[in-house]
Amino acid sequence: MSEKKKKEGGLAGIIAGKTAICTVGDGHSLRYRGYDIYELAEHASFEEVAFLLLYGELPNKKELEDFNKKLFSFRILPQAVREILKLIPKDSHPMDVMRTGVSALGNFMREKEDFSNQDEIALQILGASPSILLYWHAYHIHKKELDFESKKDSVLKDCTAKFFLETLHQKEVPQLWVEAMNVSLILYAEHEFNASTFTTRIISSTLSDLHSSVVGGIGALKGPLHGGANEAAMELLNSIPKVDSVIEIMQKKLENKEKIMGFGHRVYVTSDPRNVVIKQWSRKLGESVGNAELYDKSEVIEKFMWESKKLFPNLDFYSASAYHFMGIKTEYFTPIFIMSRESGWIGHIFEQRKDNKLIRPNAEYIGVGDRKFVPLEKRS
Amino acid sequence: MSEKKKKEGGLAGIIAGKTAICTVGDGHSLRYRGYDIYELAEHASFEEVAFLLLYGELPNKKELEDFNKKLFSFRILPQAVREILKLIPKDSHPMDVMRTGVSALGNFMREKEDFSNQDEIALQILGASPSILLYWHAYHIHKKELDFESKKDSVLKDCTAKFFLETLHQKEVPQLWVEAMNVSLILYAEHEFNASTFTTRIISSTLSDLHSSVVGGIGALKGPLHGGANEAAMELLNSIPKVDSVIEIMQKKLENKEKIMGFGHRVYVTSDPRNVVIKQWSRKLGESVGNAELYDKSEVIEKFMWESKKLFPNLDFYSASAYHFMGIKTEYFTPIFIMSRESGWIGHIFEQRKDNKLIRPNAEYIGVGDRKFVPLEKRS
Ligand SMILES: CC(C)(COP(=O)(O)OP(=O)(O)OC[C@H]1O[C@@H](n2cnc3c(N)ncnc32)[C@H](O)[C@@H]1OP(=O)(O)O)[C@@H](O)C(=O)NCCC(=O)NCCS
Ligand SMILES: CC(C)(COP(=O)(O)OP(=O)(O)OC[C@H]1O[C@@H](n2cnc3c(N)ncnc32)[C@H](O)[C@@H]1OP(=O)(O)O)[C@@H](O)C(=O)NCCC(=O)NCCS
Repeated sequence: MSEKKKKEGGLAGIIAGKTAICTVGDGHSLRYRGYDIYELAEHASFEEVAFLLLYGELPNKKELEDFNKKLFSFRILPQAVREILKLIPKDSHPMDVMRTGVSALGNFMREKEDFSNQDEIALQILGASPSILLYWHAYHIHKKELDFESKKDSVLKDCTAKFFLETLHQKEVPQLWVEAMNVSLILYAEHEFNASTFTTRIISSTLSDLHSSVVGGIGALKGPLHGGANEAAMELLNSIPKVDSVIEIMQKKLENKEKIMGFGHRVYVTSDPRNVVIKQWSRKLGESVGNAELYDKSEVIEKFMWESKKLFPNLDFYSASAYHFMGIKTEYFTPIFIMSRESGWIGHIFEQRKDNKLIRPNAEYIGVGDRKFVPLEKRS
Repeated sequence: MSEKKKKEGGLAGIIAGKTAICTVGDGHSLRYRGYDIYELAEHASFEEVAFLLLYGELPNKKELEDFNKKLFSFRILPQAVREILKLIPKDSHPMDVMRTGVSALGNFMREKEDFSNQDEIALQILGASPSILLYWHAYHIHKKELDFESKKDSVLKDCTAKFFLETLHQKEVPQLWVEAMNVSLILYAEHEFNASTFTTRIISSTLSDLHSSVVGGIGALKGPLHGGANEAAMELLNSIPKVDSVIEIMQKKLENKEKIMGFGHRVYVTSDPRNVVIKQWSRKLGESVGNAELYDKSEVIEKFMWESKKLFPNLDFYSASAYHFMGIKTEYFTPIFIMSRESGWIGHIFEQRKDNKLIRPNAEYIGVGDRKFVPLEKRS
C-alpha cells in the first residue's frame, strides 16, 4: 500500500538467509514447499503437512503410515517427564509448562552430536508436545493422571487434531471440530523467517541440538507480538461486551495508541491469506455451537480496523474465536500454535544444518565513550 | 588481515540493531559500557560487572551490597525446582539440565506481563543458575541434597566465583582459583550480538518474558560453534597425548578439514583480546597445580594454528585448561559460561525492551516452484 512507509529496524526487509520451505508473498501466495496453502488446508491432514515441511515432499501412503505410527507412539511420555509435569504448579503459564516440558524431554532421549538420530528426535518432540499440555492439564484440573499405556489403542490411533481435542475434553467431539482443528494446525505450521523460526535457526546455527532450538522457538512464540497474539485477541474480544459497543471501545483503544492484537503483519501489507480460511471456520463453528455474537463482534472489529487504520486481521484474530467455539481455554491457544509450528521449526532446523553458517550479526554502538575504571571506594 | 576474504552469510557484517552495552573492535577494544575489559578483569568483581551490564553504571558501595544481598538470596532454590532436578538423570547433558532448570524456575516466580518485576526476575535467574548445576551435581554424584537453608550463612556470603567452586568441590579452594574464576566470569559476561545474545534479543522482541529469553540463550550457547567450544577445546587437548605429538596430530586434523575448537572468530580477525588475560591465568593455575604439560601443549597448538592457518585462540581455548586446573569436569565448562553470560543477555533484554521492535527478517526463496496438490491415493 502506497501510503504506508517502508518498515525499518528489526531486520525488516533484510534477507537473513535462504530457504526452500515457504514463500510469504504479498497477500496471495503463501505456499509450503510449492503447494498453495489453500489446497493444503482443504485436502491435507496436518501430519501430511508436517512430513512435507520436514522432508520436502508429500508422503505416499506407506511413508505416512510409518510416520504417523512413530509420531503417535511419542504421545506416551516418559514417566519422569510426567513426574516433572506434576511438580509444575496449576497456576503456571501454559507456555512455561510447554517450554519446561519440551526441555525436560531432551534429558530422556538425547539427540546425538552428529545429529544421526535427528528424525527420531523430531518425531519425539512433535508427538510428545500435545501430551505435555494434556497431561499437566488433566493432572491439575481434573486431578487425573492420564493413562497413556492402558488406553494405547485410542492414544496411538487418532490424528493430532482429534487426539488433542478428545483428550482435552475427555469425550468425543464433533467431526466439525476435528476438521477445524486440523485446518488450524496446517495454517499455523509454517511462515518463513518469523521471529520464532528465526530463533530456532540461530540456535541451530551454533550446532546446538533440536530440543534447545525448539525450546527457544517456544520462548519466542510466547510473546504477544508473535504467537501470544491469539490469546491477546481473545482478551480483546472478551473486553467488548456486545456488538453495539465495538466502535466506541475500539475508538478509545486507538486514541490511547493501544496495539490491537491479531491485526497487522511485518510482511503482509493488505491482507493475511490465511485469514479467509480461518474466518470461514470460525463462522461455521460459531453457528454450530449457536454463538453468533462472538463472530459478529469479530467482523465489526475487522471492518472498523480496516476503515480506520487500514489494518487487517492476521491468522491469530479469527483463530481466537474458532478455538473458543471448540471449548478451549484462552491460555491454551498459543500452546496449540506450538504443536503446529514445531513442524515448520524442525523443517528449518534440518535445512539450516544442511548448509550451516553461524548466524552472528553486528551491532551499531551508541553507548558512552571510553572511560577509566573507578575503584568501588571512590564511587559516589 | 588483507589476505582474508570478506565473510558472507550468517548475517556477517550486517548491523542488526543498536546497543550501548559493548564494543567489539578489531583486536584491542573490547569494552563493557565504555570500560576496558582489561581494567575490569584486573580490578572488578563479577558482581560489579553484572550490575554494570544490567544498569549501565558501576554500582557504589550501597548499591553493590543491596544487589549482592538479593542476588545471593536466590541461590536457595524453590523446593519444587530441587525435586525436578532430582528427576533429571545423572547422565543428562549438563547444558540440558541448566536449560530445564532455568525454564522450571519460571514456573515458580513469574515475570509480570508489564515487566514491572524484571529486576527481581533478573536477579533470580542470575542467582539461581549456579545452584541449579550444583544441586543436580551434588544429588547425582555425591548422593547428597545440598542444604541451602541451614547453611544460609555461607551460602549468602560468598561471591559467585567462591560460592561456585567451594560448593562444587565441597571444600575450601585456593584464593588463586577464586580470583581466576572471577576473572573468567568477567571475560565471559558480554560480547555484543553473539549468537546467544542475539537469540535472547529476538525472543524479547516478541515481548516474551525473561525466562523464555534466557532459556533460548542457553540453547544457543550449547552449540560447539559458540559456548560449547570450551568443552570441545578440552577434548582436543585430551586427544593429544603429549607436547611432542601436537604437530603431527594437528596436521592430520587440518588435512581432514576438521574445525579446531577454540580457534577463530566471526568478528575478530587477528586476535581475541580476552585471550591474553585468560592465557596468563591458565599458566598461573597450571604452575600452581604442577601441571605444566597441558599448558605447554596449548601453547604449541596456538603457535601451530597461527603459523599454518593464521587462526588465533579465542577466549574458549585457554579457558578450557584454566577450568581443568581448577578440577572442574569438562561438561561443566559451558554451564559456567551461562552463569556469566546471563548478565550480558539480561542487559541486552532490558535494552531491547526500552525501544522494542519485533525482529523478523526475510528469506530468499530457493525452493521448488508452484505445484498442484496430489491426493494421497495418487502419490507414488
Ligand atoms: C505484527 C506486528 C508486530 C508487525 O509489526 P512491525 O512490522 O514491527 O510494524 P510496527 O509495529 O512498527 O507497525 C507499523 C505501524 O502500524 C501500527 N500498527 C501495526 N500493527 C498494529 C496493531 N495491531 N494495532 C495498532 N496499530 C498497529 C504501528 O503502531 C505503527 O504505527 P506508527 O508507524 O504510527 O508507529 C504488529 O502489526 C503488531 O504488533 N500486531 C499486533 C500483534 C499481532 O497480532 N501479532 C501477530 C502477528 S502474526
Ligand atoms: C567462530 C567461528 C564459528 C566463526 O566462523 P565464521 O565467521 O562463520 O567463519 P567460517 O567458519 O566460515 O570460517 C572462515 C574460514 O576459516 C576457517 N576456520 C575458521 N575457524 C576455524 C577453525 N577453528 N578451525 C579450522 N578452520 C577454521 C573455515 O574453515 C573457513 O575456511 P574456508 O573459507 O576455507 O571455508 C569459527 O571460527 C569456528 O567454528 N571456530 C571454532 C569454534 C569456536 O571456537 N567457537 C567459539 C567462538 S568464540
